[in-house]
Amino acid sequence: MIGFDHIKELALKTPSKIVLLVMDGLGGLPASESGRTELEMANTPNLDQLAAKSVCGLHDPISPGITPGSGPAHLALFGYDPLLFDIGRGILETLGIDFDLEEKDLAARGNFCTVDEKGLVVDRRAGRIPTEKSTELCQLLSKLNVDGVQLFVNPVKEHRFSVVFRGDGLSPELTESDPQQVGVAPKAISTLSPGAERTARLVNQFVDEAKAALAESYPANMVLLRGFSKHPNLPKMAEVYRLNPAAIATYPMYRGLAKLVGMKTLATGESIEAEFATLCQHYEEHDFFFMHVKRTDSAGEDGNFEAKVSAIEEVDANLPQLMTLAPDVIVVTGDHSTPAMLGAHSWHPVPLLLHSRWCRPDGVSQFSERACMNGSLGRLPAVELMPLAMAYALKLTKFGA
Amino acid sequence: MIGFDHIKELALKTPSKIVLLVMDGLGGLPASESGRTELEMANTPNLDQLAAKSVCGLHDPISPGITPGSGPAHLALFGYDPLLFDIGRGILETLGIDFDLEEKDLAARGNFCTVDEKGLVVDRRAGRIPTEKSTELCQLLSKLNVDGVQLFVNPVKEHRFSVVFRGDGLSPELTESDPQQVGVAPKAISTLSPGAERTARLVNQFVDEAKAALAESYPANMVLLRGFSKHPNLPKMAEVYRLNPAAIATYPMYRGLAKLVGMKTLATGESIEAEFATLCQHYEEHDFFFMHVKRTDSAGEDGNFEAKVSAIEEVDANLPQLMTLAPDVIVVTGDHSTPAMLGAHSWHPVPLLLHSRWCRPDGVSQFSERACMNGSLGRLPAVELMPLAMAYALKLTKFGA
Repeated sequence: MIGFDHIKELALKTPSKIVLLVMDGLGGLPASESGRTELEMANTPNLDQLAAKSVCGLHDPISPGITPGSGPAHLALFGYDPLLFDIGRGILETLGIDFDLEEKDLAARGNFCTVDEKGLVVDRRAGRIPTEKSTELCQLLSKLNVDGVQLFVNPVKEHRFSVVFRGDGLSPELTESDPQQVGVAPKAISTLSPGAERTARLVNQFVDEAKAALAESYPANMVLLRGFSKHPNLPKMAEVYRLNPAAIATYPMYRGLAKLVGMKTLATGESIEAEFATLCQHYEEHDFFFMHVKRTDSAGEDGNFEAKVSAIEEVDANLPQLMTLAPDVIVVTGDHSTPAMLGAHSWHPVPLLLHSRWCRPDGVSQFSERACMNGSLGRLPAVELMPLAMAYALKLTKFGA
Repeated sequence: MIGFDHIKELALKTPSKIVLLVMDGLGGLPASESGRTELEMANTPNLDQLAAKSVCGLHDPISPGITPGSGPAHLALFGYDPLLFDIGRGILETLGIDFDLEEKDLAARGNFCTVDEKGLVVDRRAGRIPTEKSTELCQLLSKLNVDGVQLFVNPVKEHRFSVVFRGDGLSPELTESDPQQVGVAPKAISTLSPGAERTARLVNQFVDEAKAALAESYPANMVLLRGFSKHPNLPKMAEVYRLNPAAIATYPMYRGLAKLVGMKTLATGESIEAEFATLCQHYEEHDFFFMHVKRTDSAGEDGNFEAKVSAIEEVDANLPQLMTLAPDVIVVTGDHSTPAMLGAHSWHPVPLLLHSRWCRPDGVSQFSERACMNGSLGRLPAVELMPLAMAYALKLTKFGA
């Protein structure tokens, strides 16, 4: 496929508008009784009508057989090859709490854990202490002093927290302190490559001071750190595509991912309806909109087939609002599959429709996994979606003479 | 996909014959009234009959969403990855006038332009002077002396001309002199990388002498140069595929592209009928024929749906002549789409049929964009076409033991 650098050269600034509507975890698997997937079961007259005027297909978020996390799945949808652009776990955890990352930040995922009097781990999750307790302890840890870096320790959920080290010249090339088993001591953090010595020293200093500060906080009397990663400094969509992009998402992590590629995040409400209203309200201000619907994925993760069907139907019911805006290109898809039957993210390819006046309609008249199989986009890697959306919005000039 | 170097190792010299029939800009978009594309509207009994005995599919000239120029689109059809093999704009312009390029040549696209008494550009196209006038001025410029290089200045059309610098050690790593706006002076040409200093000096010397020579030729009293590029020295098809290839094309640029990959260009008439007659006449002399039909693209570029339909029908009417030759492999496709609805090259995938006695017929019985969607070749990048044609002609040996 054509590279990112080529797209930069071909991208044109035009007034045309693209809306990328992502139902998280959209793809599903047939329920045994009905033989139909969540999307096939959902009553979606508006999506079906749109499919009939679109080109359809299925995308593989990363490549066939690979189940993606939210980070790489979204990067791929934004056209950033997730095998080239890596978002570390510490960074992703930190994006998920709406923390305003800076480019020099080093982030890690933390667990509160329990150690015995010999310092051996007896519970890697400190009895899953409540988030309120964790919040209190994070405030305590935020006050620690580590030479030459600013510390930000924030609760995530239960025993999980995020720690950000802000300072110049920090390196993510560190081993993890979590031994991934009980009965042994947390590991000292060491370097994975030369140049990370100072960072390893600073991080070990933080762990030592945390241990001292938590001495009286049994069961949360120690911390484990992993997923050290730096802000990925991704090229921005303005630079790659010459777009002025905005994101509408109710969950912090998706707003965070959108910010990484230079989208403006628009304040919105909690409901799907509120997200569509936000799109209408800001429609004149941007030429690219990423709309993220979380409920499809949450329902899939919960194994709740019916709730996923109903989230899809709610999106469908709101579609006419989007249609009245008449964007030049509408893409509707998911970032990956989350079949309720599996109760987890999966590798199954994801249904996709792309509408524009420049489509050759392909005879697909239903928006579903099986119908999209016969679409003219065929089966394609997710990273090819943005070049297609750009092309159908007449935003790419000719390659070569 | 398997690389070019592998193909070289696998290619066999055999008596079997391949005909690659390219209708330039073949792919289209449905007209709003009929809902049918140019190819769907055309009455093509012979192509449809051939499709029924072929494997069909759609190809992406470069990759999904990318609209190609003629150069990269044809390289891809010949099996040369257009992202690896680059044909510069100066070279392409020069191929278009049937100029016999040598491997040491440096070519540029030129414009005659108008400058005022201060030397500022007032018209980048010199009032689009007639080609006759430009021809005269090109003869004048051909007589200039530039140290150590031979000069060839040839008219293209109106204010556009081609200039070729023939000499040893010339570099294409040069900036352009065209400021792309009026009210400023033409830019001095400078180097893009070390080693191009001497070439920059020679080219600037040419521009200075041209300015002096054109002083009395208002409005064409200056030149602007861009698209500096060298002969790409492509590997030849004889070497890559062990073929003895010939090209039949009415337009110089396509003959030029064919020459770059080592095809012999056969003299032919202006009509589609004449091209088929040329094929029949020379059929015994070669084992690979590239036949290029230009009218489909010209009609598409003109937005003339009916003319494109009729060009396709004319090709269809001539097909029986080709069938009587019974080549081992016939490929019919386009280099890219040029929908009359868009009036320009586009990114839409291009219908494709491949006929050989070794096909598994795939149930496609019409040669059209929509019917080819259901073909067994699926959707594939254009560079994969030549390995397929070679295989179906039994010209590729086994990979590995």
